[in-house]
Amino acid sequence: MKKAIGIVGGVGPYAGLDLNKKIFDNMKTKGADQDYLDVFLVSRSSDIPDRTSFLKHEGLENPAEGLFRSVLALEKLGAKVIAIPCNTAHSPEIYNKLCEWMHIAGCESELLNIVAETHHFMEHTFSSLKTIGLLGTLGTFETHLYDDYFHQKGIFRIITPEDEGKKACHDAIYNKSFGIKAFSNPVRDEAKDIVYREIQKLQQKGAEAVILGCTELPLVFDTQTSCAGVLLIDPTMILARALIEHADRNALKPCLLKDAV
Amino acid sequence: MKKAIGIVGGVGPYAGLDLNKKIFDNMKTKGADQDYLDVFLVSRSSDIPDRTSFLKHEGLENPAEGLFRSVLALEKLGAKVIAIPCNTAHSPEIYNKLCEWMHIAGCESELLNIVAETHHFMEHTFSSLKTIGLLGTLGTFETHLYDDYFHQKGIFRIITPEDEGKKACHDAIYNKSFGIKAFSNPVRDEAKDIVYREIQKLQQKGAEAVILGCTELPLVFDTQTSCAGVLLIDPTMILARALIEHADRNALKPCLLKDAV
Repeated sequence: MKKAIGIVGGVGPYAGLDLNKKIFDNMKTKGADQDYLDVFLVSRSSDIPDRTSFLKHEGLENPAEGLFRSVLALEKLGAKVIAIPCNTAHSPEIYNKLCEWMHIAGCESELLNIVAETHHFMEHTFSSLKTIGLLGTLGTFETHLYDDYFHQKGIFRIITPEDEGKKACHDAIYNKSFGIKAFSNPVRDEAKDIVYREIQKLQQKGAEAVILGCTELPLVFDTQTSCAGVLLIDPTMILARALIEHADRNALKPCLLKDAV
Repeated sequence: MKKAIGIVGGVGPYAGLDLNKKIFDNMKTKGADQDYLDVFLVSRSSDIPDRTSFLKHEGLENPAEGLFRSVLALEKLGAKVIAIPCNTAHSPEIYNKLCEWMHIAGCESELLNIVAETHHFMEHTFSSLKTIGLLGTLGTFETHLYDDYFHQKGIFRIITPEDEGKKACHDAIYNKSFGIKAFSNPVRDEAKDIVYREIQKLQQKGAEAVILGCTELPLVFDTQTSCAGVLLIDPTMILARALIEHADRNALKPCLLKDAV
C-alpha cells in the first residue's frame, strides 16, 4: 500500500521546497509523471512564529500551534507520513507539544523526527565515523537537540563551534541583509563564507563529518557532498529518503552518499 | 485581504516545484519566513493521466478528472487562487471540462489560465514584438492552444517548428532515456541540444522571442532569459507573478525581465 507524503513547509519556505525536490530526486520511476508517489507541501509561514525566538523566550506563542494546524491540513489531504523540514522545530518544547496534540486529535499519520532519522541513517551508513561536527541555529545549539539524542545513543561524539562560531552560524541563517532566510536563491557569498569557515574550524577540531543541522544550510551546497575535507551530512536528504521508505519501500533509489566515503 | 495560493502540481512533479519556487522568488519580503504568503502544492501525479495521450485519443480518461480532484483538495485547504503548471492541460478538451466541473461544484477559488496570463503579460511588457516562436508538446501544438488565443487577440504572430521539429521537441520532453520528464534534475544534454536547436531554427524564421510552452522547458534554462539571440518567455514565471498579483498585489516584486529587452 503506497502512502501519501506530507511536508509541513514554510519553515522556511525554501527548505520546504528543498525537501520536496529531494523526495522527487530520490524516487525510483520509469520516467513518467504517473510513477511518482503523492506529495503534499503546505507552506503556511505566517501561521508559524520563529522557532528560535520562542525557545529564547522572545515569543509567546508556541510554534507547535501553527505546525499542528499544518499537520491537520495535511491529514485532511490524506497524508500518511509527514515531516517538518526545520531542525529547530524538533526541540522538545515544540516537538513534544505537537506530538501530544496529534495524539489527542487522533491523527493517523506518522510524523518522522529529523534528528532520529539522521542518527538512524548515520548508524547504518557511516558507523565507522566517531567525531561529528554540528552547525545550526542558536535554538538548535542551546536546546542540545542533536547532542542529547546522539549522546544517549553512544555511537558518535558531537562537537559544536565555540560561542562566537555559533553566533556567526546563526547570523548566516538569519541576518536580514545577507542571511540564507532572506536570500535563499541564490545564497549570498557572505553567508557561504561563514558556513565554510565554521566547517573548516570543526574539521580542525577533529570532525570527520558535519551535520548541516538547519534546513537552510543545505541550500548553500546544492549537490556538493563534502567541504574542507569533511563529509557533509544533509538531514533534509535523509528525511526525504526516510519519507519515501515509509511511503513505499520499493520506490526508494539506491543511496549515492554511501559511495562518497 | 491576502489570499492563499494553490498549485495543481505533479504535471509534471518538477514543473510544480518550479512554479512554487518562482512564486517564492517573486514575492517581496523583509527576509523573514513569516512574510511569505501561504502556498499549497499538491502533487498527485498518479491520479492525472498523460495530457497529450488523451488529446491523441490514446487514453480514455480525461485528465480533467484528476485535475478536478486536485483543485478540490486545494479548495479544502483554503486556496483562493489556483494554477496548473502544465500547458497541455489548458487545451479546451481538458481545461473547459475542468472549469465546468468547478462551476457545478460551486468552487470559490479563481483558476488562472497559463495561456491567457502569458498573452496578458506579453501585451503589457513586450508589445513592440511581432513574431513569437512557440515550443511545446505535440498536444499543445496540435490543439493550437497558443496560436488560436494569440491569433484571436491579433497583436502577436505565433510561429511553430516544422513537423519534424515539433516531434523532436516533444521527444526532448517525453523520451524515457533522455527526456526532461525522466531527467529533470539535472536535464540531460541531449534534451538541451534539441531545445537549443529548435530555438535557433525559430530565430532563423524570424522569431524575436520564444514561448517555452511546456512547463518542463524552463527547467532547461534556470535563470537564463535569452538563447540564440531571442528572448525566452517563461509561462511558469508569468503564472507565478500572476498568482502573487491575485493573492496580494503588494507582495509582488518588480519584474526583472522588463530590463532584459
